[in-house]
Amino acid sequence: MKKENEEMVVTPWEVSGKIDYDKLIEKFGTKRITQELRDRLAKHAGYMHTQLRRWIFFSHRDLDWWLDTYEKGEPVGLYTGRGPSGPVHLGHMLPWFFTKYMQDAFDADLYFQMTDDEKFLFYDDLTLDESVGYTYDNSLDLIAVGFDAEKTHIISDVNDIDHLYRYGLEVAKRVTCSTIKALFGLNDSDNIGMIFYPAIQAVPCFLQSVREDRKVAVMIPAAIDQDPYWRMTRDISEKLGFYKPAQIHAKFLPGLGAGGKMSASMPETAIFTIDPPEVAEKKIMGAFTGGQPTVREQREKGGNPGVCSVYAYYFFLFEEDDKKLQEIEQACKTGALVCGDCKARLAGIISRFLVDFQEKREKARDNLESFLIK
Amino acid sequence: MKKENEEMVVTPWEVSGKIDYDKLIEKFGTKRITQELRDRLAKHAGYMHTQLRRWIFFSHRDLDWWLDTYEKGEPVGLYTGRGPSGPVHLGHMLPWFFTKYMQDAFDADLYFQMTDDEKFLFYDDLTLDESVGYTYDNSLDLIAVGFDAEKTHIISDVNDIDHLYRYGLEVAKRVTCSTIKALFGLNDSDNIGMIFYPAIQAVPCFLQSVREDRKVAVMIPAAIDQDPYWRMTRDISEKLGFYKPAQIHAKFLPGLGAGGKMSASMPETAIFTIDPPEVAEKKIMGAFTGGQPTVREQREKGGNPGVCSVYAYYFFLFEEDDKKLQEIEQACKTGALVCGDCKARLAGIISRFLVDFQEKREKARDNLESFLIK
Repeated sequence: MKKENEEMVVTPWEVSGKIDYDKLIEKFGTKRITQELRDRLAKHAGYMHTQLRRWIFFSHRDLDWWLDTYEKGEPVGLYTGRGPSGPVHLGHMLPWFFTKYMQDAFDADLYFQMTDDEKFLFYDDLTLDESVGYTYDNSLDLIAVGFDAEKTHIISDVNDIDHLYRYGLEVAKRVTCSTIKALFGLNDSDNIGMIFYPAIQAVPCFLQSVREDRKVAVMIPAAIDQDPYWRMTRDISEKLGFYKPAQIHAKFLPGLGAGGKMSASMPETAIFTIDPPEVAEKKIMGAFTGGQPTVREQREKGGNPGVCSVYAYYFFLFEEDDKKLQEIEQACKTGALVCGDCKARLAGIISRFLVDFQEKREKARDNLESFLIK
Repeated sequence: MKKENEEMVVTPWEVSGKIDYDKLIEKFGTKRITQELRDRLAKHAGYMHTQLRRWIFFSHRDLDWWLDTYEKGEPVGLYTGRGPSGPVHLGHMLPWFFTKYMQDAFDADLYFQMTDDEKFLFYDDLTLDESVGYTYDNSLDLIAVGFDAEKTHIISDVNDIDHLYRYGLEVAKRVTCSTIKALFGLNDSDNIGMIFYPAIQAVPCFLQSVREDRKVAVMIPAAIDQDPYWRMTRDISEKLGFYKPAQIHAKFLPGLGAGGKMSASMPETAIFTIDPPEVAEKKIMGAFTGGQPTVREQREKGGNPGVCSVYAYYFFLFEEDDKKLQEIEQACKTGALVCGDCKARLAGIISRFLVDFQEKREKARDNLESFLIK
């Protein structure tokens, strides 16, 4: 059964239903990225990143102000993070590739928060040792993306709490229980760690300012589901003597299941960075597509790239050449390209990507220490 | 206006009204200390402390079990603490003197928590620098009491959070927001730090066990108002693999104001350890007593030591000789002793105490470092 009109849910803990990004901009009260803004970004970077060109990063708060600040020669920084509850998949990495582009473009420090406390508090069956273990495991993926060791500071909330607690208290004193309940949909039967936790996620917005003893304008590139945290943080930043963090919001990489579903309980719907290439290939070959039930029908009627998870993987990550992407789209629609061939091609690309990435990921073990916050 | 029947309030943040300790035992569901239990304590210590002899420590949870554990040769420890929001007065120190007696008697490690995070979160006008500043200032008082540097570990919640956060999370995951609201009378308009904080106060119950990698039976000597924290902690201790903390509860040292009132906003109602001796003497001379309005009436009718704050200071701290205490009581009741003379005598004792204590307190600066948790 297709559930075309399944209700859209976008919270920091659940993303489901058919995502309407226009509605999200309206609901969250953010702004659409304009042509002018992405041109300004591209100017500083030297080129326009695929994720900008294709409006994968589509929404923002104060990107214009953040660029103004940079252009005035004032200090800027980057902050993003990850909830380490399992292995990393391509959906997690999508904004990291863009964050690396931002780091290069602005020569900016990146504070990267591993929210191992959050994951422990929210997942009944996850132990602290497990979530902290994933912090260091997932850091290998981050490092393999190519960040600058000198300018990247990975924070384990649990192990690096001495960097966070003081300002976490300053935040917590200014946020009521009812604010948190309303923002995050929590209630009295939730544990007190969940209620307090948003104070800890706020702190890396200020950490570079604190450590450098000057006001740093921080930009957070992240998927849009994390926005409630930064709304809360923005409300109190100035009271604490810091700038409000700016944000740039990404769309979600669809999963390989029907309707673009991705689920941790269905590992076949996501490509994990530690998947053996042949396993990833199998996942792609079994992915949900926009094709017709038979090759004959496909040749006759053509497919629908708009609902196809395989096409989405080309679009989001694996075909950066716009002309080639358009060729795939056209060939699909006209029936010249059938799903088996299209999937096999993507499977080959992803397989080669994984071989290369996994090599970098292994090498990252030797550099891990230099990326951890001091 | 006397308010004899003023409602009794005993919470971790407010102690007011006429305290009925029998009712507190009933309300909190604790046990009265028996003759047999105090004899067992005295046997191990070599003598019975005044605070036991006079039932100043009057209530407990699992003191019998804790003594059993010690007598079996299994490890025991001590934990108590202080909310550092200002200078220390004699009321704060009352249970510290007893804790020192316990440390000597059982050769036990003491974990002493300075809840500088709590005080910051609960007091609108207190900054973090101020509450952390009081942590180290108040530590001088603790050290001056005579604790063993080798066996005493002072914890600043803010500066030593790396010792606490991990187990704080383990506690927080098992305590709901509604439990905290019910136990501490908090509500949705309170800040999220206040809601989370009890998880941090629980941790020193387990810290010695964690650091020594064995189950240590912990005893908490403290005023009875802190009981809600330990009720919460006892509910989850065994789930985390630790013993429930045992407790031994003290009465409150009355203040010098009418009806035994003590108030931080009225510094004349308490003797602070940093009071210049002449200031303390003045406070005693101005204290509320159980005497008659005139010397003549006192001589005729006698006074009432039962409501007298000056008598209370003899009873709780400054006349350890039972026979001499009884002489004071009798002389007061018969009118042989008038308030002026009685106060002058106490003022002299307290003045000499302060001179001596302040000398020890200054010397404590040199040893402070060795008392801080490593």
